[in-house]
Amino acid sequence: MSVLVVGSIALDTVKTPMAEHADLLGGSASYAAVSASFFSKVNLVGVVGDDFPKEHIEYFGSRGVDLAGLQQVPGKTFRWSGEYHWDLNTRDTRSVDLNVFEHFTPTLAPGYAQTPYVLLANIAPGLQHHVLDQMEKPRFVIADTMDLWINIAKPELISLLARVDMLILNDGEARQLTGLTSLIKAGRAIQAMGPRYVAVKKGEHGCLLFAPDGFFSCGAYPLEDIHDPTGAGDTFAGGLAGFLASQDNATVTFENLRQAVVYGSVMASFNVEAFSLERLRTLTQGEIAERYRLFKLMSQFEVISD
Amino acid sequence: MSVLVVGSIALDTVKTPMAEHADLLGGSASYAAVSASFFSKVNLVGVVGDDFPKEHIEYFGSRGVDLAGLQQVPGKTFRWSGEYHWDLNTRDTRSVDLNVFEHFTPTLAPGYAQTPYVLLANIAPGLQHHVLDQMEKPRFVIADTMDLWINIAKPELISLLARVDMLILNDGEARQLTGLTSLIKAGRAIQAMGPRYVAVKKGEHGCLLFAPDGFFSCGAYPLEDIHDPTGAGDTFAGGLAGFLASQDNATVTFENLRQAVVYGSVMASFNVEAFSLERLRTLTQGEIAERYRLFKLMSQFEVISD
Repeated sequence: MSVLVVGSIALDTVKTPMAEHADLLGGSASYAAVSASFFSKVNLVGVVGDDFPKEHIEYFGSRGVDLAGLQQVPGKTFRWSGEYHWDLNTRDTRSVDLNVFEHFTPTLAPGYAQTPYVLLANIAPGLQHHVLDQMEKPRFVIADTMDLWINIAKPELISLLARVDMLILNDGEARQLTGLTSLIKAGRAIQAMGPRYVAVKKGEHGCLLFAPDGFFSCGAYPLEDIHDPTGAGDTFAGGLAGFLASQDNATVTFENLRQAVVYGSVMASFNVEAFSLERLRTLTQGEIAERYRLFKLMSQFEVISD
Repeated sequence: MSVLVVGSIALDTVKTPMAEHADLLGGSASYAAVSASFFSKVNLVGVVGDDFPKEHIEYFGSRGVDLAGLQQVPGKTFRWSGEYHWDLNTRDTRSVDLNVFEHFTPTLAPGYAQTPYVLLANIAPGLQHHVLDQMEKPRFVIADTMDLWINIAKPELISLLARVDMLILNDGEARQLTGLTSLIKAGRAIQAMGPRYVAVKKGEHGCLLFAPDGFFSCGAYPLEDIHDPTGAGDTFAGGLAGFLASQDNATVTFENLRQAVVYGSVMASFNVEAFSLERLRTLTQGEIAERYRLFKLMSQFEVISD
């Protein structure tokens, strides 16, 4: 089965304590779509300007991503620039130029409305609503978000929560959205706002999954060196959604989702090993399978099996 | 097999945002010994003053803790007073009165030198050395420590590391000891200082175990309410050491230690549910087994079994 991914497609300038790179392929939909493409077919919905390098579009195509929903319009591509602090755990946004994104209205390409799995990657909640309005009974809808939308578009985000099966957000955002310090209370409180499943990402501390029938705690892969955290959350969401679509169950189960969270974590752990999507470009199915196996080993404390 | 526990025995005054209690049973050895007693026989080494309530000594006895190594001397018992901040993640020490602890020299009771498992609970590294000097070929030695000793007794702590099989410390202390931000790098760096095994506790984020032949990530039990974090680390160390002693393997294995880390986490998760050792007083083996089972469920993402 396939997954529809809507989000931003950007050209990023990223500065870390070690290096700085300009005009990198970025944006939530770029990371999420490529990550999902390792597991399933992807219908990409997004917009770029006429300055968007053809090689990036070709790269999406080489990953089997359907590009009928990718609008290329006159003007400049969305640009984001950020600088990471010394420990790579926090960052400052240096500039945001919406450009063609300012007037973007995602209209689904023919056939996209029937896509069974939907990932509303990080983008304004109003646009997430707009895409959802056009979908015809999707099987499972996942929304990602960020602190910006909790700050400036909370009502739209809250009303979106009643329409999705799963929300993905990080620990700080979960606390911000609920006003609760305890992540356990925050996760449960977000479930009460609508989504049956809530994934709370904790960076180097892994991820918590709240389900109606349980709780799952996933550790982070023990990386010694992180080169660029940009897109880790989007890659996580894409891997998660892509894996779910690949399973094609009539109903998504808690067990499906636990494995999906691990595959999302696997994909994010690769993504932070290099700038932009560089690591995903060389990633193989064998490497994914091997790291999934290592996640299993590092989290099991009784029977250890391959 | 039995485990020797040396550490502090204290009367604590603890203030949280919700409540304040004075003259509570506390101290690293009290928590660790009682926690270990759920798994194995315990030889307790410590000192109290003549003001120490008889009921606490009787409680240790009721847990089967051997008290031949507990010195009661003229003077006042060690007292600690602390106040937790609003989120219970950080605290200020309000006062420390060493009292009888100031001139404490732990001398082992007859037979204690042959105890196969040793837990050097949180106490000055000089005293940890002194106990270790008296031991006769212990099978496995675990040391706990705290930021205070890294600040004021680093050389003694460093030399202790070459003598122990395992060090337990929290994330902030691991960074402080190594000067490294990455916990993965810090854990590996501490292994290089001597201990084959290093457990880095991360509070609500669980615990990392570094082994020569692997890495284990243990989540924290999803508690919605924490009443008093005091002694969580000591209870963790005690449960871990007690479980290892109960296994009585000729050589402690990575698999033993993974399970020990989970049992330590189980014990710590109970301990924070109430002030002082109150929760441990009512704790049953059935509750421990049930929570261990829940740890397994919340960390497995493939086969789920009881």
